[in-house]
Amino acid sequence: MTEGWPDEALSRDDFLGGQLRLWQPKQGYRAGVDPVLLAASVPARTGDTVLDLGCGAGVAALCVAQRVPGVKATGLEVQPGYADLARRNAAENGTELEVIEGDLTRMPDTLKQRQFTHVLANPPYFDRASSTRVSDDGRETGRGEVTPLSDWVEMAAKRCAPKGTVTMIQRAERLPELLSHAARHLGSLEVLPLIPRKGRAARLVLIRGRKGGRAAFCLHDGWILHEGDSHPGDRENYNAATTCILRLGTPLLFPS
Amino acid sequence: MTEGWPDEALSRDDFLGGQLRLWQPKQGYRAGVDPVLLAASVPARTGDTVLDLGCGAGVAALCVAQRVPGVKATGLEVQPGYADLARRNAAENGTELEVIEGDLTRMPDTLKQRQFTHVLANPPYFDRASSTRVSDDGRETGRGEVTPLSDWVEMAAKRCAPKGTVTMIQRAERLPELLSHAARHLGSLEVLPLIPRKGRAARLVLIRGRKGGRAAFCLHDGWILHEGDSHPGDRENYNAATTCILRLGTPLLFPS
Repeated sequence: MTEGWPDEALSRDDFLGGQLRLWQPKQGYRAGVDPVLLAASVPARTGDTVLDLGCGAGVAALCVAQRVPGVKATGLEVQPGYADLARRNAAENGTELEVIEGDLTRMPDTLKQRQFTHVLANPPYFDRASSTRVSDDGRETGRGEVTPLSDWVEMAAKRCAPKGTVTMIQRAERLPELLSHAARHLGSLEVLPLIPRKGRAARLVLIRGRKGGRAAFCLHDGWILHEGDSHPGDRENYNAATTCILRLGTPLLFPS
Repeated sequence: MTEGWPDEALSRDDFLGGQLRLWQPKQGYRAGVDPVLLAASVPARTGDTVLDLGCGAGVAALCVAQRVPGVKATGLEVQPGYADLARRNAAENGTELEVIEGDLTRMPDTLKQRQFTHVLANPPYFDRASSTRVSDDGRETGRGEVTPLSDWVEMAAKRCAPKGTVTMIQRAERLPELLSHAARHLGSLEVLPLIPRKGRAARLVLIRGRKGGRAAFCLHDGWILHEGDSHPGDRENYNAATTCILRLGTPLLFPS
């Protein structure tokens, strides 16, 4: 288990153009744009309950809470150090976030009896059965898969209320696997490919399902992240729509 | 079984801008742009062997043979009337096409011992378990599913040579199902969504796998079919790249 970090081992980073300033360990799992895009795509409204499975330092959950006034956000986090950071990040940003420490495969009793309007998750991207472990324990849990993807999907569906949604972000490479699990527990599946640049293959996918949904599967046209055909050196060049999501906190709406 | 049609029950339609003029029954299953797009995406080269499973009147197989000089094309067709039409279409267009009559789930002995560099198929789009039968028998076999999609994928993979490709076109709604079958028999899976217009959901998908392939799954940026945001009345408005495929017979290359 990762324990807490001394302040000098943390950085405080701006999210949503500085609407949120969040502590993260300098070493270990660090949130990039992925949890921000995930949070932006969660179709939560005022009064809804939202559960972030594996909330880490709370980036995705806090982005949802920041965007949607009156949402009731909860995060489940297995690593005590990250759970503490998530609580601190919520407090220091004046945002309500209930953080529960625990393992999603041994769901804490406090969560077992509850269901949420929306469940979100950014499960680890790499399956440790076929990749190499990284040295840092916190980074390992965030990036490498200890819990199989099938458990993430099943547990997310279990904690989702009838007609509620489950939204996940994952590497596009794992879409076949993710769809096969999702189809077992959710309906009305939709995939929004996240395309680095026009014409490139998707690097990530957002996938959403509805508990008890009966609509046909829908593959949306890809969401393009960057302008132009190639990366202009070290300059960031997200296109305007993506910049609005990342810097202003606008929602990332699945086309209807 | 559909038997042959008298000539007055047939129409002779232009494909690839008139490079091919193909007989089809006026009533019954009629090829649209789908088999043309499928054929354009098959990465066949001179000397390769190509098998079209469920070739109907031969549209896809003949489009491949027309585009790639020296390809050896074979079609399997369960309905004798369509098999006859495919033979007639090949002969009248001066294109070589071997047509074998038979059911892919009871693979004819003439095919059992053979493998092909490329296998293609445009399996029926509708699962008869969850949709209504249409009245015409030929149309029913072309559009409604008698043979499950899993059999199409398995039989395509069986008839595919090591390192060869299997390419299929199917409704995007059935991608989860198609991927789960394909992942069992093929590797290096790639999906090219076919998007009616920018921003719209995919209506169809092209899916390709390689026999024995080990590359990660790849979700390509979608191929846009039409210009503009809405359909301009009854005027066809394929964009330039799609028009080249449909009218000039250029290949539809998966991005590399």
